[in-house]
Amino acid sequence: MHRSPVYLFTDFGLADPYVGQVHARLLAESPGVPVVDLHHYAPPFRPDLAARLLEALLDHLPPGGIVVGVVDPGVGTERGELAVEAGKRWFVGPDNGLFAAPLTDPQARAYRLALPQTAGVSVSFHGRDRFAPAAAALARGDDSVLGEEVGRPILGERVREEVIYSDHYGNLITGIPGEDVPLAGNLVIGGREVGAGRTFGAVPPGELFWYVNSLGLVEVAAREASAAAELGLGVGAPVCWTA
Amino acid sequence: MHRSPVYLFTDFGLADPYVGQVHARLLAESPGVPVVDLHHYAPPFRPDLAARLLEALLDHLPPGGIVVGVVDPGVGTERGELAVEAGKRWFVGPDNGLFAAPLTDPQARAYRLALPQTAGVSVSFHGRDRFAPAAAALARGDDSVLGEEVGRPILGERVREEVIYSDHYGNLITGIPGEDVPLAGNLVIGGREVGAGRTFGAVPPGELFWYVNSLGLVEVAAREASAAAELGLGVGAPVCWTA
Amino acid sequence: MHRSPVYLFTDFGLADPYVGQVHARLLAESPGVPVVDLHHYAPPFRPDLAARLLEALLDHLPPGGIVVGVVDPGVGTERGELAVEAGKRWFVGPDNGLFAAPLTDPQARAYRLALPQTAGVSVSFHGRDRFAPAAAALARGDDSVLGEEVGRPILGERVREEVIYSDHYGNLITGIPGEDVPLAGNLVIGGREVGAGRTFGAVPPGELFWYVNSLGLVEVAAREASAAAELGLGVGAPVCWTA
Repeated sequence: MHRSPVYLFTDFGLADPYVGQVHARLLAESPGVPVVDLHHYAPPFRPDLAARLLEALLDHLPPGGIVVGVVDPGVGTERGELAVEAGKRWFVGPDNGLFAAPLTDPQARAYRLALPQTAGVSVSFHGRDRFAPAAAALARGDDSVLGEEVGRPILGERVREEVIYSDHYGNLITGIPGEDVPLAGNLVIGGREVGAGRTFGAVPPGELFWYVNSLGLVEVAAREASAAAELGLGVGAPVCWTA
Repeated sequence: MHRSPVYLFTDFGLADPYVGQVHARLLAESPGVPVVDLHHYAPPFRPDLAARLLEALLDHLPPGGIVVGVVDPGVGTERGELAVEAGKRWFVGPDNGLFAAPLTDPQARAYRLALPQTAGVSVSFHGRDRFAPAAAALARGDDSVLGEEVGRPILGERVREEVIYSDHYGNLITGIPGEDVPLAGNLVIGGREVGAGRTFGAVPPGELFWYVNSLGLVEVAAREASAAAELGLGVGAPVCWTA
Repeated sequence: MHRSPVYLFTDFGLADPYVGQVHARLLAESPGVPVVDLHHYAPPFRPDLAARLLEALLDHLPPGGIVVGVVDPGVGTERGELAVEAGKRWFVGPDNGLFAAPLTDPQARAYRLALPQTAGVSVSFHGRDRFAPAAAALARGDDSVLGEEVGRPILGERVREEVIYSDHYGNLITGIPGEDVPLAGNLVIGGREVGAGRTFGAVPPGELFWYVNSLGLVEVAAREASAAAELGLGVGAPVCWTA
């Protein structure tokens, strides 16, 4: 029998010894459970942008699994911790809006973590010390880590007409879902009008275009070039449509 | 019994949520098959350089396995898709010269992919939506994804006297195989003559030298320093030999 | 039964095709043994700093396992190779001080590697060609790779009042253990006095503070900002305390 994976979605980056420690903990506490490094460069300090990116990613993952989500500027303060069950998945992380998408599922149930505050727990690395152990417990089928239900977890505002992520090619991913694209009109970003392209191969090299990307989101790109560099823009840049 | 791995060789980078989605797909469709992140910083948009680097890497991998190779500037156009069997390995990816090395094996056989063009397939992320599922099928022993044989897959030209890769230490890897090094003469790069060194510990700190690296390729390096920074050169820089 | 993992701790980075080749070798020679990428951005060419970081990491890993450590500026010279058994863990890598911490354990035993110098071994990539195969052998329970005991392995000097690592958030990790923090006094770095904070959420955004981090080390940080950029400092910067 194959077990459903733990997905890691964090802003830890891969250059530091943080993700490795999370893997080590998961391996020790839920051996045999596969762990997928889904994304470790979520926008730091911005749970709202990360929440939008995570929402889009969830639509393109196989069903099931446990998502450990850590974009957590409030670590070490009184911010809450959550385990959320929604759409046959679990989500474990801080109560700061990062799990806004699964929490809007009317069937979602949210719980505080009931882990003991033991001596070895750091004030700054709950990914390793609290969320990984909680996820490992759920992966083992141990729900003793679920505490009281949370009536009103933090949701935050859904980011839409804004760049939520700039990838290493320089593609600018917005929060606009493909199904909300207007029937006519160009996209406007950084004072420039950008026309639609179906995909990279369909436009001349270097030319800016927008298309609905593999996450189902409107993305501004340039063929074999960096839209971010061409526009001098990145995360947080506003976008809109011409009439 | 242990199964032979899927090797990923792409230009996706590790900073973005692309590789994680490929892992998620492989795990769901071929559970229990190990996946090795062989390289995710192949030169973007340059299947010719990536092909040369992949060729060198193959000589230093254990036998067998399935290589998913994605350096694919033509994604979303009419460029073909390949599954190639050569030297007891499979290769799955675009038909753009990336698999030139295995394809020159006289025993190699190349097939179009026979995956259905289903609704969930993106126009820009065939790594996740077509190549991973095809590789997973082959890993499960399901060859229904092999379509018609391809008579003349794209080969491109083999890159040799050029820097094909610059690593994070600043070492400049050329396409020249160690066995082609002339008996006498220095290497010339960026207008400078560079002498041979056997290895890093054998030259003074900071000094440029060339040697045959762990991939069997001529590499220009500097002990405890960056040859790329010292020369102000990178991928594509030409190299030659003095008489 | 679940097997204890191989931990990789190197300065190879993740941008190059080096770590992937180590994984491929381990998978081929010790299939079924989990491999954890603990850290691949140890300070290059500085086994002393890497040794201090590794020491701190070991305190926060589950017990057991085999650590492959490679920060190895002397690769290809006559520097020795070690397998060290200490504290129920194995350590495999160069004899250059990288394993100073486990070697100070009075019960530690250090051995030369007894691997044959076969034809396929590179002069520059012993991580793939010698340390991975030795670790794989130990993981399989094959101790034929252990050669003669080493009486005086290299220890080097323990780095303390210095920045040993700068993470991708710009946090500056020093070699000072939390238990050595004086009862009174501020930390001085780059000519500036920095006060204590308990954690990130407890100080105003942008303000520099120091705290004992998740590795048990004194770290200089700034809330939602980069201490490294604010101070213009990085690895090697000295720190001290006011009276």
